[in-house]
Amino acid sequence: MFVLLNNDFVNRNECLIDIEDRANQFGDGVYEVIRIYDGEFFLLEDHLKRLIYSLNEAKINYDIHKHKLADQLQKLVEKNAFQDGGIYLQISRGASPRSHPFPKNTEPTLIAYPIPVSKPAESQEHGIKVILQNDFRWLRCDIKSLNLLGNVMAKQSALDAGAKEAILYRDEEHVTEGSSTNVFIIKDGVIKTHPANNYILNGITRLYIFFLAKQLDLTIKEEVFSVKELKQADEVFISSTTSEVIPVVQIDEDQVNDGKPGPIAKQLLNAFSEHKHIKQIQ
Amino acid sequence: MFVLLNNDFVNRNECLIDIEDRANQFGDGVYEVIRIYDGEFFLLEDHLKRLIYSLNEAKINYDIHKHKLADQLQKLVEKNAFQDGGIYLQISRGASPRSHPFPKNTEPTLIAYPIPVSKPAESQEHGIKVILQNDFRWLRCDIKSLNLLGNVMAKQSALDAGAKEAILYRDEEHVTEGSSTNVFIIKDGVIKTHPANNYILNGITRLYIFFLAKQLDLTIKEEVFSVKELKQADEVFISSTTSEVIPVVQIDEDQVNDGKPGPIAKQLLNAFSEHKHIKQIQ
Repeated sequence: MFVLLNNDFVNRNECLIDIEDRANQFGDGVYEVIRIYDGEFFLLEDHLKRLIYSLNEAKINYDIHKHKLADQLQKLVEKNAFQDGGIYLQISRGASPRSHPFPKNTEPTLIAYPIPVSKPAESQEHGIKVILQNDFRWLRCDIKSLNLLGNVMAKQSALDAGAKEAILYRDEEHVTEGSSTNVFIIKDGVIKTHPANNYILNGITRLYIFFLAKQLDLTIKEEVFSVKELKQADEVFISSTTSEVIPVVQIDEDQVNDGKPGPIAKQLLNAFSEHKHIKQIQ
Repeated sequence: MFVLLNNDFVNRNECLIDIEDRANQFGDGVYEVIRIYDGEFFLLEDHLKRLIYSLNEAKINYDIHKHKLADQLQKLVEKNAFQDGGIYLQISRGASPRSHPFPKNTEPTLIAYPIPVSKPAESQEHGIKVILQNDFRWLRCDIKSLNLLGNVMAKQSALDAGAKEAILYRDEEHVTEGSSTNVFIIKDGVIKTHPANNYILNGITRLYIFFLAKQLDLTIKEEVFSVKELKQADEVFISSTTSEVIPVVQIDEDQVNDGKPGPIAKQLLNAFSEHKHIKQIQ
């Protein structure tokens, strides 16, 4: 397998990083996971736009245009003859003697490589169980950063409880998102999801769902909802680049509605693959 | 320079880590910085005790006793003929194909090596300027984890404002700590610092200051204080392994008291080196 390391393609086994790379010591970097269907990037431009947002907010000085990143990613897919899966891409602030402040004259480190993604067909068909958990992550979840220990711990708690995802809440009135997904509820035909602000990551699949809702003439609102609203919803589903749309049929010990995937989640899921040629929605 | 990489001593330049080490992709690891004075560890046992706490809370399965970590660190210092500075030590959950949940059957990665630490003599003598900044970090600051982007961003904001540290607050009533230090205020002879809970890291130097205060017959309390109390304090100082004790003489544009280091900070600083032979205080 070839890995894109800065501007070079190197063999996976030869791709190692310095112990003082700031990704390794501070989680000081940002990332994207971009889906590849049939050898083609899905919503690449939207991912690159968000990458620029994360770089700017974290003040990491990396010009994706100067580095011709889109072209390089395209080459990466071709060199690996990659057909279906994801490209994981991260940019750290670079390697420098360990010290909290931003280093001067240090070049960022870019790493990108293909990762396997299997379509979660069973979860999509039958729905999943989730757990509710307090959201103890930082207050800049809008930055897609490498500071993911809170997400990792929440995800593992879900698995330990026999669930597939943890839905996080700041307090009883404020559900935010999943440990690696956005969360949507549906009541009386209206879809609701958390507004795109510092409490959540503005998922590209979240944006794609807004696009699909428009195509399907569904009503969708960005609005904070409570734990009670979540539990009393007609339908609940989660979304992410690798999950696409997955219905939630159980929250802790409670069924969502009749405990079966609902019609709107199914409608979105059916429509999901119809627009896979789209390069950009925003 | 020799680096301790798991159980081996390797040359610094040959010490590289895998791109899928979880430290690199999730900040999924914990760390310590241990001070060396005159070739000897300062409070090594306390640092190792906190390391065990961080490992347990993050559920990283690494037995420091089985790995004879204390002996290995001693050898590291000897092999490098290291006299004065710090040992940086991190333990990640190990390298594994990228996925949020804890990997199974993966060995943690340990890295430890000497770092230069210069005594901040001028700051200690004249005091420093700090800025106040909103604390947007996660709610498990008691874990000394590699998720440090919030700390890094706060520290850089301080430097950009011509200050040396950022003192963080959750709200006007709740000052927590500095971006890489603990914070102490003094009013009418009583020293106050934030209780050791999930909002702060329980600094080893913070604990040493409790020990020194006892020796010096000073009154010290663990109590949350407000931004107003901070600004109206008779004295303010910060502490950390590398800072020891540094008086704060300016907060944003306001002087602390008469803008000069106060007597209690000086007293603690003078006493600081008197107990450098101590291996353990807790």
